[in-house]
Amino acid sequence: MNTDSANSGGRRTVAWQAVQDHVARVSATPIRRWFELEPRRFEAMSLEAAGLFVDFSKNRIDAPTLQKLIDLARASDVENRRDAMFVGERINITENRSVLHTALRNLTQPELIVGGVNVLADIRQVRQQMFAFAERVRSGDWLGHSGKPVTDVVNIGIGGSDLGPRMVCEALKSFAHPRLRMHFVANIDGDALADVLKSVDPERTLFIVASKTFTTIETLTNAHSARRWFLDKGGSEKDIARHFVAVSTNRDAVAGFGIDPANMFPFWDWVGGRYSLWSSIGLSIVLCIGPAQFEELLRGAEAMDKHFRSAPLEANMPVIMAMIGVWYRNFLDASSIAVLPYAEHLHRLPAYLQQLDMESNGKSVTRDGARVNHSTGPIVWGEPGTNGQHAFFQLLHQGSELVPIDFILPVEPTHGLSAHHQLLVANCLAQGSALMNGKSLDEVRAELVAKGVANTEIDRLALHRSFEGNRPSNTLLLNRLDAASLGALIALYEHKVFVQGVIWNVNSFDQWGVELGKVVATDIGDILAGRSAATNLDPSTQGLVARILAKGK
Amino acid sequence: MNTDSANSGGRRTVAWQAVQDHVARVSATPIRRWFELEPRRFEAMSLEAAGLFVDFSKNRIDAPTLQKLIDLARASDVENRRDAMFVGERINITENRSVLHTALRNLTQPELIVGGVNVLADIRQVRQQMFAFAERVRSGDWLGHSGKPVTDVVNIGIGGSDLGPRMVCEALKSFAHPRLRMHFVANIDGDALADVLKSVDPERTLFIVASKTFTTIETLTNAHSARRWFLDKGGSEKDIARHFVAVSTNRDAVAGFGIDPANMFPFWDWVGGRYSLWSSIGLSIVLCIGPAQFEELLRGAEAMDKHFRSAPLEANMPVIMAMIGVWYRNFLDASSIAVLPYAEHLHRLPAYLQQLDMESNGKSVTRDGARVNHSTGPIVWGEPGTNGQHAFFQLLHQGSELVPIDFILPVEPTHGLSAHHQLLVANCLAQGSALMNGKSLDEVRAELVAKGVANTEIDRLALHRSFEGNRPSNTLLLNRLDAASLGALIALYEHKVFVQGVIWNVNSFDQWGVELGKVVATDIGDILAGRSAATNLDPSTQGLVARILAKGK
Repeated sequence: MNTDSANSGGRRTVAWQAVQDHVARVSATPIRRWFELEPRRFEAMSLEAAGLFVDFSKNRIDAPTLQKLIDLARASDVENRRDAMFVGERINITENRSVLHTALRNLTQPELIVGGVNVLADIRQVRQQMFAFAERVRSGDWLGHSGKPVTDVVNIGIGGSDLGPRMVCEALKSFAHPRLRMHFVANIDGDALADVLKSVDPERTLFIVASKTFTTIETLTNAHSARRWFLDKGGSEKDIARHFVAVSTNRDAVAGFGIDPANMFPFWDWVGGRYSLWSSIGLSIVLCIGPAQFEELLRGAEAMDKHFRSAPLEANMPVIMAMIGVWYRNFLDASSIAVLPYAEHLHRLPAYLQQLDMESNGKSVTRDGARVNHSTGPIVWGEPGTNGQHAFFQLLHQGSELVPIDFILPVEPTHGLSAHHQLLVANCLAQGSALMNGKSLDEVRAELVAKGVANTEIDRLALHRSFEGNRPSNTLLLNRLDAASLGALIALYEHKVFVQGVIWNVNSFDQWGVELGKVVATDIGDILAGRSAATNLDPSTQGLVARILAKGK
Repeated sequence: MNTDSANSGGRRTVAWQAVQDHVARVSATPIRRWFELEPRRFEAMSLEAAGLFVDFSKNRIDAPTLQKLIDLARASDVENRRDAMFVGERINITENRSVLHTALRNLTQPELIVGGVNVLADIRQVRQQMFAFAERVRSGDWLGHSGKPVTDVVNIGIGGSDLGPRMVCEALKSFAHPRLRMHFVANIDGDALADVLKSVDPERTLFIVASKTFTTIETLTNAHSARRWFLDKGGSEKDIARHFVAVSTNRDAVAGFGIDPANMFPFWDWVGGRYSLWSSIGLSIVLCIGPAQFEELLRGAEAMDKHFRSAPLEANMPVIMAMIGVWYRNFLDASSIAVLPYAEHLHRLPAYLQQLDMESNGKSVTRDGARVNHSTGPIVWGEPGTNGQHAFFQLLHQGSELVPIDFILPVEPTHGLSAHHQLLVANCLAQGSALMNGKSLDEVRAELVAKGVANTEIDRLALHRSFEGNRPSNTLLLNRLDAASLGALIALYEHKVFVQGVIWNVNSFDQWGVELGKVVATDIGDILAGRSAATNLDPSTQGLVARILAKGK
């Protein structure tokens, strides 16, 4: 442990304790009561930045506690750590890498020299390569081997090479190219690829193979099966270059596959998979919404980057959301957060944020290499509203677990069914209100009395029908679900996760936790294929393997 | 509180304490060690029923603790409560209703008299009505108003009228009718309906409006917008009956909409929404996979029902899974479970189970009307493997939170890409194995030494790359993802949730928690529409409303 971080650790411990001192007092007061105790609480606890508006007044928190949380952020060196990220310091310390996804949406700065290289020049060059290619496909200029324009794009990639592009293409469906249908194949399960191949025409289909190393087992297995299908359906080896392109840095493997290296779109080791949609991993996004809208997406993210970099911590949206999350996670013992977009097209946002958050901060080792002594990243889950209201909201309202919620709501629709949208908005606001305010036993009793229900029945039923309330939420408003708003929203969550990683003192940018499973999968694959015996396995896994092998006979 | 439940409460308290006494001892032993201490643990802790196989040996539990948990189930009167459900007693005590979704898949019993009525006769009659209609549509005999067969079916429903049918149609895609494309519209967000309407031909589209009361706001709003679209696209009022059918009990409203009452498929008040896919709510399923496969689905569920009803608790799959869940929830303080199907087509299973589990047991009031003094239903979440491995699995392996996992794996594929499937199987088993066994610091150090890494680097990195293991999972094997296996799987979870509801002493069959939000939404809808002023709202909601109204101007 070096002196710097030891000092920072000491300051952090003091600041942490200062927050802890508020728990009992704040816990004794229901949220709705704070609105009486704190005049102008809504104004003080809401904030606009980069086109987003967040209301965080419906939380179990008062102004002094929030200030102590901001103090904790400051004592944890959030500002310096943030600045170190933006200028390209190697903050990914276990892999000795810079973390520069913010450079990918830096549209305004002339240069950013990292390790002697102007990374912005590299980025902009690759982006031009992407844009030029995408324009050819979108215009109909790029033709398949039999002379037909592309109608279907199949992105083959997994994890960061899938979740980001898929989520964004779904979210911005209202801005999609009318001729191009987007498909995403991630899973090694053959059904993922088979379903898509059933629905596309080999003469009109473009495959994007997205794998930095061009060795990811799922992606390469799917890509090779797609390649075989293409050849079976009348394509020739030389036609492959018209139907397959790559997002990768492995030129030899890409060329060996039959892809023209001119259509290999590279990226860099300072872009983590879960932060890569802004890079050439976003090629499918550019094909779907076009270069101009992709730039809007970047512009929205850049606006949030600028806010995060310059706003004082007390008025800094990612910092405030992060520290409220820390409050629930570490001081009120919440294990999960629910992200509930009131927008059908954001149906993949929770899955995207699962990776962003849980892969970044689902760690138990500090940056100094010691075991953490506090809880780290929460579980992230959710489904779109209003659907969820008719499913799991029961637990949010009356269950035994504290679940902080982020509601996400576009104020204006991108469709013409305005009566639908007004109901959507009303439902979103109603849930936040009902969760906080609840409905007391007295109110329920009075209501049942007024209905003429017998007293014994009232005694039996009243508690079932009451709501204790005091269930917290943030409400995030987007003007509408467009590229700029979405870019800002994603960047907001990225930076929130970053700040929390700083507080928890973990490296948010590695993912050692996925390595062991890969190694064991190779061993078991060998056993299933009869290449080795099941001697090294635990008895449970051995029993499962034996059973599966017996079924296959 | 009556004498019975007081006695049962006393016995339960003793049995509960007996489990509690095992916590410290069992927690001190990592799972992998139990395999040494308990020879034949895999054989003892795995079970086959209704075509499913479950391995529950990879749990933080030993044989005596499991027995104490089974004792707790017995002391909680699980057997009597189960029998009461099957014979139609009014176990939904807050709504005074029977709970008879099991009757819907009772294919063998001649009669089941409930309240003087043979419910099996009613059920079978409606099922014949569904099957006859579905056969007409599937065969091409049923024609749209311009004489064309149906190519697209749009199910308009939400909650239980959406999640079950949608999940099953996705799961059994390999068995789908080749001409019929299935669509599901649930959300009030206009994008949900607009996206579907863009992709279908009004002359070849059949809408199913699924709402028991025919008043659900989302469903009726979407249905009326679909109706208007149909009329705008050239249909006439009298053609509506050829393009809209209903799953409902409100004959007048259905007829008023323009639907022929002969094409209204009813169900009963003893079917809860989240248990309704077996009823006429499953009409879209019958259209998709046909009557014979739908019967297979029922048959699989019936086989699990028979097992649940007859197997001793010690060898009862739903009971064992329930009690392991109780162990984690109440004794080891886990707040969530992850359901991870290694099957792309099961991608909606976690969302389905969210409703089933969280709406059933996300309660805080006992059946006797008192506040619970223990944790109740967990959060359920998940995504298909292998996708999740490249996303949130980091947290499962190295995060700070205990997350019990259900892996679900079809042994045989329904597609021809066998190399893909072998990798899928290997990955699923590898995850369970890696999570349990982990990788010790010593192993990591030895590996790094062998690679020639410097000692200071090893000190810095080793803990990051180690896995403490001891992370529990169940592995559920299906022979393949077909209708019978799926039916058994769903019934397994239904009964697991039922048993847990008994242990937690909640009514798993009501959902009062969704009522308050509906009332508040109506109020806010009036305000947004200018029909009333925002005077009753809390300051936060008032602030949001003001902001949204200002944007709309």
